[in-house]
Amino acid sequence: MFSPRSDLAIEAAAIFNKSESDIKNIEGIEYKTEKHDNYTLTRVKVLNSKGEEAIGKKIGTYITVECPKIRENYDEASEEVSRVLSDELKKLMNLEKISTVLAVGLGNWNVTPDALGPKVVSKLAVTRHLFQYIPDKIPGEIQPLCAISPGVLGITGIETGEIVKGICDKVKPDLIIAIDALASRKIERISTSIQISDTGITPGSGIGNKRRGLDMEYLGAKVIAIGVPTVVDAATVANDTIEILCENIKKSKDLSKDIGKALEITDNELRYPLIKEVLNPFVGDLIVTPKEVDEIIDDVSKIIANGINMAVHNGTSNLCNA
Amino acid sequence: MFSPRSDLAIEAAAIFNKSESDIKNIEGIEYKTEKHDNYTLTRVKVLNSKGEEAIGKKIGTYITVECPKIRENYDEASEEVSRVLSDELKKLMNLEKISTVLAVGLGNWNVTPDALGPKVVSKLAVTRHLFQYIPDKIPGEIQPLCAISPGVLGITGIETGEIVKGICDKVKPDLIIAIDALASRKIERISTSIQISDTGITPGSGIGNKRRGLDMEYLGAKVIAIGVPTVVDAATVANDTIEILCENIKKSKDLSKDIGKALEITDNELRYPLIKEVLNPFVGDLIVTPKEVDEIIDDVSKIIANGINMAVHNGTSNLCNA
Amino acid sequence: MFSPRSDLAIEAAAIFNKSESDIKNIEGIEYKTEKHDNYTLTRVKVLNSKGEEAIGKKIGTYITVECPKIRENYDEASEEVSRVLSDELKKLMNLEKISTVLAVGLGNWNVTPDALGPKVVSKLAVTRHLFQYIPDKIPGEIQPLCAISPGVLGITGIETGEIVKGICDKVKPDLIIAIDALASRKIERISTSIQISDTGITPGSGIGNKRRGLDMEYLGAKVIAIGVPTVVDAATVANDTIEILCENIKKSKDLSKDIGKALEITDNELRYPLIKEVLNPFVGDLIVTPKEVDEIIDDVSKIIANGINMAVHNGTSNLCNA
Amino acid sequence: MFSPRSDLAIEAAAIFNKSESDIKNIEGIEYKTEKHDNYTLTRVKVLNSKGEEAIGKKIGTYITVECPKIRENYDEASEEVSRVLSDELKKLMNLEKISTVLAVGLGNWNVTPDALGPKVVSKLAVTRHLFQYIPDKIPGEIQPLCAISPGVLGITGIETGEIVKGICDKVKPDLIIAIDALASRKIERISTSIQISDTGITPGSGIGNKRRGLDMEYLGAKVIAIGVPTVVDAATVANDTIEILCENIKKSKDLSKDIGKALEITDNELRYPLIKEVLNPFVGDLIVTPKEVDEIIDDVSKIIANGINMAVHNGTSNLCNA
Repeated sequence: MFSPRSDLAIEAAAIFNKSESDIKNIEGIEYKTEKHDNYTLTRVKVLNSKGEEAIGKKIGTYITVECPKIRENYDEASEEVSRVLSDELKKLMNLEKISTVLAVGLGNWNVTPDALGPKVVSKLAVTRHLFQYIPDKIPGEIQPLCAISPGVLGITGIETGEIVKGICDKVKPDLIIAIDALASRKIERISTSIQISDTGITPGSGIGNKRRGLDMEYLGAKVIAIGVPTVVDAATVANDTIEILCENIKKSKDLSKDIGKALEITDNELRYPLIKEVLNPFVGDLIVTPKEVDEIIDDVSKIIANGINMAVHNGTSNLCNA
Repeated sequence: MFSPRSDLAIEAAAIFNKSESDIKNIEGIEYKTEKHDNYTLTRVKVLNSKGEEAIGKKIGTYITVECPKIRENYDEASEEVSRVLSDELKKLMNLEKISTVLAVGLGNWNVTPDALGPKVVSKLAVTRHLFQYIPDKIPGEIQPLCAISPGVLGITGIETGEIVKGICDKVKPDLIIAIDALASRKIERISTSIQISDTGITPGSGIGNKRRGLDMEYLGAKVIAIGVPTVVDAATVANDTIEILCENIKKSKDLSKDIGKALEITDNELRYPLIKEVLNPFVGDLIVTPKEVDEIIDDVSKIIANGINMAVHNGTSNLCNA
Repeated sequence: MFSPRSDLAIEAAAIFNKSESDIKNIEGIEYKTEKHDNYTLTRVKVLNSKGEEAIGKKIGTYITVECPKIRENYDEASEEVSRVLSDELKKLMNLEKISTVLAVGLGNWNVTPDALGPKVVSKLAVTRHLFQYIPDKIPGEIQPLCAISPGVLGITGIETGEIVKGICDKVKPDLIIAIDALASRKIERISTSIQISDTGITPGSGIGNKRRGLDMEYLGAKVIAIGVPTVVDAATVANDTIEILCENIKKSKDLSKDIGKALEITDNELRYPLIKEVLNPFVGDLIVTPKEVDEIIDDVSKIIANGINMAVHNGTSNLCNA
Repeated sequence: MFSPRSDLAIEAAAIFNKSESDIKNIEGIEYKTEKHDNYTLTRVKVLNSKGEEAIGKKIGTYITVECPKIRENYDEASEEVSRVLSDELKKLMNLEKISTVLAVGLGNWNVTPDALGPKVVSKLAVTRHLFQYIPDKIPGEIQPLCAISPGVLGITGIETGEIVKGICDKVKPDLIIAIDALASRKIERISTSIQISDTGITPGSGIGNKRRGLDMEYLGAKVIAIGVPTVVDAATVANDTIEILCENIKKSKDLSKDIGKALEITDNELRYPLIKEVLNPFVGDLIVTPKEVDEIIDDVSKIIANGINMAVHNGTSNLCNA
């Protein structure tokens, strides 16, 4: 059956478009929303295996910052979102002095909407080497940060997990921050929502590959994942349109029961083959994306890089050359 | 009403998905298809104002080369398509010795799917200056070719037409070749179809702006336009999916007349607001595009540049540094 | 004879390395230096044809801002230099309300040290089209600014002057600002000095080509040129090294007159063939450049774009999306 | 004392500008030159510790292909040089079926003349993952090739050696090919010479850092290094110019002994401070490079990638998408 693709906890089927009170009744899940002037913070906690089953996400915390203003007025919103991101990161990281942090920029730098991770990494204030070469000249707030963009399987011929694991074995970081582009169900979340979680990440998981996850168990250090939706897949857009169509027809009071039956069929059996019929001739992934995705990725990667720089270096960004 | 966006003559409503015999009956239109092993050539001629009305395109010739193999096996297909393109161009250009050709790469180089024109221009074997500086050393087949990418209004603050007209007034070309990215209705045409026409082009016309067209009347020289679909707009994908849904329901024989009526409504009045509901929260253009659009644009721009180089320089590409 | 290549008025042979009092004696020249904490401002005025002959520059004003701190501490220096640049520009431009300004980014975007002009242009707050499309929504301080990067002859096959003239004939700007990368004699000036002049500019003049200059006479509007040294040519470095060597030997008191004679020869006749012997095997331009020239060009183009944006839009950079 | 910087074995002081018969007398060195129509092949073998001392290079084989035609006529020369490179690589690699090869692109992708390694890697036909995912569909000649560009210390905060070692521990390659940009003493070698050696490589060794070398001992597999000169450092150019000057003065017969004495001083003590005086105001590396270095690096990286692809995949480049 057709299952809309999404990497966001707040878009899990059990939560998506549900009222807060409905979500409260899901066992094993804690759900809390804070509305601020310019942004909304949603915290989803998966408490146990029942919660895991309910929303299909691993035990842990998933925080989403939603700020539509990023797109309408980047200059005003960007600083605030970086600060919120930094605050939430600090709480999740809970770093002691001196902790080595390894940032990992996942994704393919040759594919614009997938290049978010590598772009963020290119803007980080990398400092780990200074602790070795000029230890006396490092301000007290600075932490040793190193960063790598491991590429993707088609570029390197090596599983991303193998590369990251190999480097972790040498660097022995106390914490890993992995940044990746996500798929969302909702077009308005593209570049305006940021999800932070403490449960690790599976590179390319959105595409359906089964791969080794980047998590504490495999890498030997806590893995915080930061993700931003940069695409909606085309099948999801088609599906959502039809869903709304069917609902509208059903609501129409002057229709007989026959139609109800007909649409029942439509819902369950017809929809996916139809979507396939429209989209399938194309070999490969089809995505829906704003035309200006190149610029959008640039903008949001600055926000995230600033957030990480502030969180890791305790507000000092003097060494940043972003 | 919703009108699917397309820049291809073969996707005009009167032609799209129609049988060849149906199209034959349209007054003022000539339509011919040649099937070859690896590609299909379709020639649409708009003969008079009746034809203009019928398909909404100006009097002139529209040739479309369709070659799905470009995407499946670029290395094998690219050379053949360049050659076909070159042959068709030569016939349309009908150049005398020595004719100055100005190539114009339309579109925004900062937006990947819109960067086709500037990418093609960057791969052309520009030679006009050699006729001035080293006239004795130019092989006989070479023609004076010059090339410019005028950018877009948001980048320059100047209408594209003004820039091109200003340069034409100085260069006085005998022929202009304008290259642009197009929108198609069908996803499988992305990067696999090339349309050539001798009727000029209106930059950004696909987006609905009313702007001065680049044509013989304005620029004082024949304008051949080469276009390749690089996107399908998201509303078109949603619309086509619903259309197929409605048709399938209608075909279902065990439904009462009520449903027929309901779907009639759907067709005519409901569809566009529904699509708006799904897609609209986003400010700006939403496009459906293959994920690898960066690579696809690179590939197809080489094919077109080679085709132009061969057509203009009579098969000599020694000076090409593409 | 070997003549060190430089595009800076303050490096003209009659002025270079001379004391201020010596320069005061040159007829037809006014020369004034202001030292500030972080930068030095030098104004050279060429008053008449005697001045033109003396330093080989056209009648007009040449202002140079020198700020070595740009390289040592970009974050601190950049804002101040942008402001100084903006102040000097305002005085030279002397714009009335509402004046259309055309910025022209000279140089080859494919060659890093030559890409300064196009990079600056890509960071300008272009507004001319807004006066046509949304005239009511434009803040009062904003002026109509448009911008173009015409490329170079080898890329377009068209003389830069022809392109700019053609566009000027359409746009009819009240003022033109041309930005270009320069050659300097002194390595420490690379990216740390900015020259502003009101005498126009000849694209590619540094390389020795005789081309139509971009000036009031040709374009019909005042042309302000902004230039930044991004390279020193390799022959100049070699020449300067030898010059210092020869001077040091001459100063050596225990040498006989024979040596003096020998070095005299060296000065005048031997030097240039020697430099040719070392550098010549290479076809084309050889430049001396800092290894990090890519980053340096990025940095200084931001400073200049900000300076122009502030000067043209009277301090309002809200519309800037640099 | 000033020591001209070079990474080429054939430019070691004991060999540079010496006649073949002089070099034959150096103990511990074998030296052989083959002249072909379009290129010259020079093989330097360092046989023992005496040879190591004599030319300052580790025991092993150093092969240099010199082909000035690469710059004059890239299209004609490139294929032949790729083939020569492939043949020499095959002999050095001596691969058995099936051997995993790891290509490592050393250098900084943000600095044009240092980006050679990453550029080559981006053009390789990576296949190792296919052996895992579609083992039945791989033609017999194809070998498992994987590839990585580890970045530089300032970008990652991690020593290049640590990253490569970590990945080797996971991938366990049978052979490593490391590609790097080199410094040469002679300008005409920029992009026209390729050195291949079987002795490993020390990243950034040209700049004088003492770092862990990438060699068999550290990585557990044979390391073949491929290097191309992309810069000459500015001090070397200045030094060579002065050297020629001094020699010419000495040859001048009508000079007294005093001058001889003076120039003796010049040679030994004065030269380096003089060069410092001219070049030093600049913080950081100064390089001499052709202005078109961006294009040159593109060209030569294609030659090397093709050479590696052919050597590793036994002439089959069907899978290449360079």
